[in-house]
Amino acid sequence: MNTVEEVTAQVLQKVRPSLVESEKLMRLADRLLEAVKDASRNYEGVLDARLEGSVAKGTWIRGREEVDVFVQFSRELGKDRLEKAILEIGNVVIKKFGGKTRLRYAEHPYVEGMLNGIRVNVVACYRVEPGMWLSAVDRTPYHTEYVKSRLAGALADEIRLTKAFMLGCGVYGAEIRVGGFSGYLAELLTLNYGGFLKMVEAASSWRPPVCIDIEGHYASKKEALEAFGRPHIVVVDPVDKKRNVAAAVTETKLSEFILASRLFLNSPSERFFYIPERVSKCRTMTEVRRALRGRCILGLRLRVQQKPPDVLWGEIKHTLMGIRRALEHEGFRTFRYDAWSEDDTCVMLFELQGLNLPPYYLHCGPPVYLDNAFDFVKKHVEAQDTVAGPWVSGSRLYVLKSRSKTSVVDILRIRLTRGDVSVSAGLMDAIKKARIYKSGEELAKLASRNVSFRQFLFDFLEARPPFLSRQGQ
Amino acid sequence: MNTVEEVTAQVLQKVRPSLVESEKLMRLADRLLEAVKDASRNYEGVLDARLEGSVAKGTWIRGREEVDVFVQFSRELGKDRLEKAILEIGNVVIKKFGGKTRLRYAEHPYVEGMLNGIRVNVVACYRVEPGMWLSAVDRTPYHTEYVKSRLAGALADEIRLTKAFMLGCGVYGAEIRVGGFSGYLAELLTLNYGGFLKMVEAASSWRPPVCIDIEGHYASKKEALEAFGRPHIVVVDPVDKKRNVAAAVTETKLSEFILASRLFLNSPSERFFYIPERVSKCRTMTEVRRALRGRCILGLRLRVQQKPPDVLWGEIKHTLMGIRRALEHEGFRTFRYDAWSEDDTCVMLFELQGLNLPPYYLHCGPPVYLDNAFDFVKKHVEAQDTVAGPWVSGSRLYVLKSRSKTSVVDILRIRLTRGDVSVSAGLMDAIKKARIYKSGEELAKLASRNVSFRQFLFDFLEARPPFLSRQGQ
Repeated sequence: MNTVEEVTAQVLQKVRPSLVESEKLMRLADRLLEAVKDASRNYEGVLDARLEGSVAKGTWIRGREEVDVFVQFSRELGKDRLEKAILEIGNVVIKKFGGKTRLRYAEHPYVEGMLNGIRVNVVACYRVEPGMWLSAVDRTPYHTEYVKSRLAGALADEIRLTKAFMLGCGVYGAEIRVGGFSGYLAELLTLNYGGFLKMVEAASSWRPPVCIDIEGHYASKKEALEAFGRPHIVVVDPVDKKRNVAAAVTETKLSEFILASRLFLNSPSERFFYIPERVSKCRTMTEVRRALRGRCILGLRLRVQQKPPDVLWGEIKHTLMGIRRALEHEGFRTFRYDAWSEDDTCVMLFELQGLNLPPYYLHCGPPVYLDNAFDFVKKHVEAQDTVAGPWVSGSRLYVLKSRSKTSVVDILRIRLTRGDVSVSAGLMDAIKKARIYKSGEELAKLASRNVSFRQFLFDFLEARPPFLSRQGQ
Repeated sequence: MNTVEEVTAQVLQKVRPSLVESEKLMRLADRLLEAVKDASRNYEGVLDARLEGSVAKGTWIRGREEVDVFVQFSRELGKDRLEKAILEIGNVVIKKFGGKTRLRYAEHPYVEGMLNGIRVNVVACYRVEPGMWLSAVDRTPYHTEYVKSRLAGALADEIRLTKAFMLGCGVYGAEIRVGGFSGYLAELLTLNYGGFLKMVEAASSWRPPVCIDIEGHYASKKEALEAFGRPHIVVVDPVDKKRNVAAAVTETKLSEFILASRLFLNSPSERFFYIPERVSKCRTMTEVRRALRGRCILGLRLRVQQKPPDVLWGEIKHTLMGIRRALEHEGFRTFRYDAWSEDDTCVMLFELQGLNLPPYYLHCGPPVYLDNAFDFVKKHVEAQDTVAGPWVSGSRLYVLKSRSKTSVVDILRIRLTRGDVSVSAGLMDAIKKARIYKSGEELAKLASRNVSFRQFLFDFLEARPPFLSRQGQ
């Protein structure tokens, strides 16, 4: 078995860019920044343009290069004009470099382009004093300054290790789809504990709630936790005491991170890390079919409209929970659920204990001494669907009833049709028109046509976080 | 629809003995009493012999005649000698009348005989002052005196109606098998409310806990309820303030009585009553097979030893609950259960939601931050029976496991074999050797060979108290 030091040294070899790569990326970034400055000269309210993100801080990892150029606008400029300006600037600059542009949405729209395989983002923010934020990204320049001011010695490499670890363990990314750790959060954690290994050692003994307040904005951890409504984890933003940098981290992702830290320290291995050149094995249909055997998987396939990923995934997650509640309410046992989305398609999967309900069910009535006991007896004595009873047990009446529908597809379809499932408004139409699958063969067909869905389906069936997956073994 | 008065008048016609019948029974009783007195003359410690029970009080109902002769012994006489004496006396007397005798057991053994179709019991008790009871039946002479002293006007007929109602509704009998209302309790309730109808009206608005303290032995109902440990119903014995005459009444039987009272008042009918000449329809095997269709019935057939019914039924009820708990613990949903016994056979029935468990089950592990999370991951990652996972949800680990056994018969057999079911010691051997049935056809075969079991099986499947049964419609 390798030691932690051996493993991290090997990983660092792979995720740290070479000097040549570094200089190449920095050159591209500088040229891009100049071009953005040029292009924004004619726009009203533009105060400056700056490099932000991991390139500005020198903390990016190989294979995940991304250049973020932020244009800072005056706070007097209206939101509409700011958006119009940044789209024009971004388009002009990226096209000038020979790249294709794509409109993306966060809180504001921004422009994304690919230049020589490197992702480039041109983003607008307001230049404001700390605490006077007009949009979420206004904090970014302060974050960059804060991290840069604290980056001494080999800390940039330590941050690279942290990010590679979080990526490899599947807990990296603050987007709603993931619900994990942002890049800035990875940086703060590494800075706070003074290195990757110390951070992992600390995380391995975390017992939520976790509270980290680097700049001591609060008098005590208790006070900080209270201030944010007692979440599972609070990391107070050094540049904004009112912001929890870890607000996006779900309890599950936090727990996966704790577990991964413990397992990694127990048996250090590269399998916990993102490694740039690692090719993940493509699952064959034979493997998928074998994994499907005997499992009770309900699938919903829906067409979704183009919208910002965080909006779409917020709707998907809310809808998943609504459907799960409806299924449980009908008597189905739901083990797990998850969703996959690409282009205009979304597939939701639910693993159930069974795809059919028993034909009969026990219906519990009122105590015999209540007025409605009378109606209960009258109703069920005569009902066609009464199988047995009514009888008395303890103080209550019971009756055994037969179900008209037992298949999960029929039952879910009925509830969806009568609007008896909590579904996001944005997905309502799509859900009502969704195709519902319950046979493994139908899901296998879907998987045979789309490699990305095939991988998702296989991972769903394996149900292990990446650091426990057989794939990595 | 008939009025309550019309129905009770009709019922009374049928359950009240004619003058001729009365005189015949009284004559038999008197002759028997004389014979017992004669026979006991030579026994040490005999103080007196008396008629007790419904004949002594004139409250019996037609078709249910029973003569109880009590021999009162001195409290100085030992238990063994008292038992020896009563068995000899009873045998001699009943044989003298040409009847066959049978040894029965309550707290003490006693002698039962049949003379011209009338049941005769020769019972021993001690003559003691109230409160100085040496055996349970020592109170009986005081009960007889109390009821006789309060029997004015037509109250004997009112008591007959109460008993016929309780019999018809299936709540009559304080034996453990039934868990219902004793004859003395029926008498006290009728006396307390001043008649059958007033009693039923009162019972129809009972809301447990019910407390009746005719002689005002306690200062308040609250005090009386507390004194007996807050049961569902307390009826303080007029001749013994420490005894709850309704102690044997189960919550279910109390509730059935309340429900029957409400339904009877709502639509009065003879179907609520025991009617002497009514012949109950014998169920055909076609009816039984139809009722079995689609039902999930688990049956255990065991050989039981001869023992007092209350002992046997105490063991049966305890064992039923133990098996039910074991089934639920394994994941089976139990809707109902009941047992039947005749001669040396007992059959226990359980109606389940299904006779097989799903092949996979969710196993919930510890939170990731506990020490044993490690062992959980290690164990299940490698285990052959792991279907999916381990995965993290919220703070905990989960894994999907496959079952080695899914049939209720196999699973119950294994638990019984390793002694992992709470079973009465008296039935332990019988249960371990029990035949276990899960197919309707096996139960049907059993029913085709035994009419009494057939009726029980049909009633179990219909699952209605007699006053709601289709039989009576």
